[in-house]
This record gives sequence, C-alpha cells and structure tokens, in this order.
Amino acid sequence: MPLSWDEPISNELKMVDDMIRHEVQSQEDLLTEISLHIIGSGGKRIRPGVALLAYHSVGGDDPERIIGISAAFEIIHSATLIHDDINDGGDTRRGVVAAYRKFGVQQALIAGDFLFVRGFRLGGFLGQDLVDIIADACTSMAESEILQGRYENDPSTPVDVYLEIIKGKTAMPIEAGARTGATLGGGSPEQVSALGEYALNLGMAFQIIDDVLDITGNEDTLGKPRGMDFIEGKPTLPLILALNHGGNGTRLRKLFTKDEKTEEDVDEAVEYLLQTDILERSKEKAREFSKRAVDALDPISESEYKQGLTLLAEKVVDREF
Amino acid sequence: MPLSWDEPISNELKMVDDMIRHEVQSQEDLLTEISLHIIGSGGKRIRPGVALLAYHSVGGDDPERIIGISAAFEIIHSATLIHDDINDGGDTRRGVVAAYRKFGVQQALIAGDFLFVRGFRLGGFLGQDLVDIIADACTSMAESEILQGRYENDPSTPVDVYLEIIKGKTAMPIEAGARTGATLGGGSPEQVSALGEYALNLGMAFQIIDDVLDITGNEDTLGKPRGMDFIEGKPTLPLILALNHGGNGTRLRKLFTKDEKTEEDVDEAVEYLLQTDILERSKEKAREFSKRAVDALDPISESEYKQGLTLLAEKVVDREF
Repeated sequence: MPLSWDEPISNELKMVDDMIRHEVQSQEDLLTEISLHIIGSGGKRIRPGVALLAYHSVGGDDPERIIGISAAFEIIHSATLIHDDINDGGDTRRGVVAAYRKFGVQQALIAGDFLFVRGFRLGGFLGQDLVDIIADACTSMAESEILQGRYENDPSTPVDVYLEIIKGKTAMPIEAGARTGATLGGGSPEQVSALGEYALNLGMAFQIIDDVLDITGNEDTLGKPRGMDFIEGKPTLPLILALNHGGNGTRLRKLFTKDEKTEEDVDEAVEYLLQTDILERSKEKAREFSKRAVDALDPISESEYKQGLTLLAEKVVDREF
Repeated sequence: MPLSWDEPISNELKMVDDMIRHEVQSQEDLLTEISLHIIGSGGKRIRPGVALLAYHSVGGDDPERIIGISAAFEIIHSATLIHDDINDGGDTRRGVVAAYRKFGVQQALIAGDFLFVRGFRLGGFLGQDLVDIIADACTSMAESEILQGRYENDPSTPVDVYLEIIKGKTAMPIEAGARTGATLGGGSPEQVSALGEYALNLGMAFQIIDDVLDITGNEDTLGKPRGMDFIEGKPTLPLILALNHGGNGTRLRKLFTKDEKTEEDVDEAVEYLLQTDILERSKEKAREFSKRAVDALDPISESEYKQGLTLLAEKVVDREF
C-alpha cells in the first residue's frame, strides 16, 4: 500500500510541474508572472494526479505523453481559477491574493486566455476523440458557471441543480483526465469507462467536501476566508439543506438572499450550520460518491496505482491529504 | 476576375457561418445568445475567407475540413472580441452594444471562454503541427494585448512597437489561417510560406487602415464612435506619427496622456489629425504592406482564388468591401 495517494506518481507529478513552468514562459514577463502566481501557489494537483494514475493503472508504461496532457489539465484548471476569481470577486485563493487583485482585471483576463491556449496546445497530438473529451469538459465548465449564475442567491435551488453544477464545474474535468489517461495507457473500453466513472464520482465527493469546508474551515486551512459561498450567494449542498430545514431555515433564507452580507451575517449563518446535523449529512452524501468511485474500480486489476486511486477516494471525505 | 474578393468562396463562407451557428449551440441558452450576439453582428469574415482562398489556391478540392477550421478561426476571433471589449471598456462593437454591456461582465467573460473552447475543439483533428500554428497565433494575441497595455497612454511609443503589437494581435492570426489552409490544401512548403507571408502583410495593412478609420470614420460606418483608440490611450500609427510631428504634436501629447478625455479633447485631436498629412502617410504605410502581400503570391499559380486574394490585398487600403 502506498503511503499517500500520489506516492506512486510523485516523480511524474514533479515532471508535470516542471513542464507547466516551462509551458507558461512568455516573451511578456507579466504573463509568466501571473501564471506562476496561480500555479506556484500550490493546489492539490488532483487533476494531473488522477490522469497519471489512470494511465498506469491500465498498464501504460511510457509516460511522456500523459505527462504533457496532465500538465495541460492543470494549466486549463489554472485558467479557470483566474477567470472564476474575477467573476466571483474573491480576494484570496490558496492563501495568496487573487491574480486580478494583484495584477488588475485586464491582465488577469488575458493571462487566463493565455493559459487556456497553452493548455490546448499541449493536447494537439491527441486526435479528435480525446480533444473532444477535453473540450466537452471545458464546455461543461462554462455551462455550469452560467447555470450557477442563474441560481445565485436563490434559496429554492433544488439539490439536483446543485449536483449538475458541481458535475460540470469539477467532476467532468477530472473525469476527462481519467478517460484520457486510461485511453493513452491502452486501457480497454471497459477500463476507460470504469476510470471515468471513478473520477466523476471522486469529483462530486471532492466538491461537496470543498463546500462543507467553506463552512467548517478557517482562513489558514482554506487559503481564503470561510463562508465565501454564502457571501457570494452560491447555493451549496449544506446551504440548500439548511435553507429547507424549517425553523431557523427561514432566518437563514433572509440572510442568504441579502445582496450585501455583513461579517455578522456570515458568522450567524455559519454558527447556525455548525449546530445542525447538516454538515454531517453533506459529508454522508460525499461518502456515497466516494464509495461509488471505489466500487467503479472493480474492473481494474490490483497495482500500486489502483491503490493510489482508492486511497484518494477514501481520504477525500476527510481531506487527509 | 471575380467581382469581389470573396466571390469564389461565397458558398463556402455561408457553410462556415452555418457551422459556427451550429457549434455555438449550448444547453445554456445564454451562452448561445451571447455568441450569436457577436457572431450575428456581421464582421468581414476575413479570417475564414483567407483560409478558404489559401486552401483552394494550392489546389485543395475537398473543402469539408477547411470549412471546419475556418469556422474555428472565426469563433476564436469572436472570443477575443468579447474579452477585448471587457478590457477596453468599449460600449459598441459592429454597431451593436458590446456583449459585456448587454449581458454583464461575468457572463461575457464565460461566453468568451466557451467560444475559445468551441474553436479549439474544431481543430482537434489537425495534428500537432497545425495546432501549434493556431495556438502560437493565439499566444501572440495575448502577448500583444499585454504589450499594448504596457504602452497605454505612452506618447513615446516607437513605431516598431506599434508594428509588433498589430502583428501579434491581427496579422499572425490571419497568417495562421492562411498557413493552415495552404497545408490542408496540399500546398508545397514554398506555397505555404508564400501564403503565410501574404496573410501576414495583409493583416498589417488591414490593422493600419482600421486605425486610420478610427479617426476618419463615423459611427455609422465604424459601428462604434470615432476616436476610440485615442480615448483608450492606444498608440496607433497615425497617433504616433502625430505625436512626433512637432508644433501641435506637443498639444496632442497633452491630450493623449490625459487619463479621462472629454468629447472636446477627441474632437480637437481628430480635427488636428485631419489637417495634417499624417493619415495619408499612414495609408502609404498600409499600401506598402498591401503591395508586399500581393508580391508574396508570386509562387502561386493563377486561379480565381489567387485573384480573390489579390483583390482583397489591393482593396484593403481603401476598404472597398
């Protein structure tokens, strides 16, 4: 059993990082600086990690191409983070000031476009089928951002809509990485499906926990202030459950639908959520997805890479990594 | 001799338009609406037109794939227009209100990302060499936006820097279309180079004339108020020439470097420019590029497609199309 989910691929993740740093070099120093600001600020590298593990878990053994594609997924992910911060008005990300705050909206917008292009460039050799998988995932990201915007400050957002939003914005990009890795690694159609199914469910669990941490975390561990989803009017699973909880749910509705929320509003909402069983119920939902992810790996034969994937899905709920 | 530059490919340009409209369909209606807002508002379709003419001029005769790629170039171009308008704060584009003004910055930003992805998706079959050409052109667009930002409101911008900016933002994307078209059409390396050279010079001439029209045009023909480059502090060729013109150049410098320019400032600057020979000198520079474009076509054998390319380069200076 590996000591951590990414132990079997730790060297390759370093190569992915080196490649990313190489790919974001630009004759305009500012573009490189903004890119490294977001890329150098950490992140769990789950997207490239899942792509690499999927590749090896089906027997892939010449990782040069999958390292390039893993870098592409992380670069595209960074592009969306920069643009998301502009759209959400978030001040900090991964514990550092958001790119648009530091460099200006115009520069951050262009840097996001630059990173999109650099990411897609790395996928140029893949051929139409795999490019389609990646582009469709990126399309879903954009669509789910619009969907999320439609339900901003809407206390009646159905849980199904929430699940559709996080599927598009988080789960499908991770799924695309797994499918690409499994395909390049020579996996059978059944194995590609299995790893795609694994990654989709992993992504759902991951995002639900992210949304729980927005309430239970603190600025040190989150890299941003707690309660941001609440402030931005984003309907997350814990908030949706709480808003339909009866009793204090009515008070929470009033706070949630306010256009400008004060620090006191946030504290009141967080305190309320911490007193209920709603966070536990949300984690239970994440556990369901996590279990589905592990179960999906059945057709994959045992290896340290499969163990890495299993470990990641198991630990994602307690975010012990 | 064709009646207009795009006559030999007018049916195919319609197919490109149909394909674009098909490709921007989204399950989120708003994304389709924003996309069609910019795409339906006209534009000269120079990018797809040059790609199609280049394809046929070297003997390409199965246009299905080049139609897809031509659509991709126009879609990516539309993405950059939407993001540029956010960055420049322009109110109108092609005679209609800018997308971000109508739909909001957040939605326009996401729609631009959506269009980028849809464009790149259409290039998925191309293979690494051609994807590199397209991605490098997109990289240059981002880099030249940053370069342009560095020289905003700078009255000492050298002409060379201006030429580098318009090369990256306008000429290289058109060049990429020509090279892609010529390659897919089965052109020899010499023909691909020749058509690339043609398109690069065409793009330079086109942008210089665009910058002249910003001064001589009116809102009806421009689709936006005149003097926008001046207001935004963008150093264009006529402005750079005027700022170094001695005499009234000093007064113009004062106006150009103001952060907030009034309507009177714009009128004064435009009137001044109209009284000098600077616009004629700028057009002369565009004519040089136009001539170089036509000359570059020497290795291409005669056909209505070559005639279309020639006509486009000749007419670009008087913008008679």
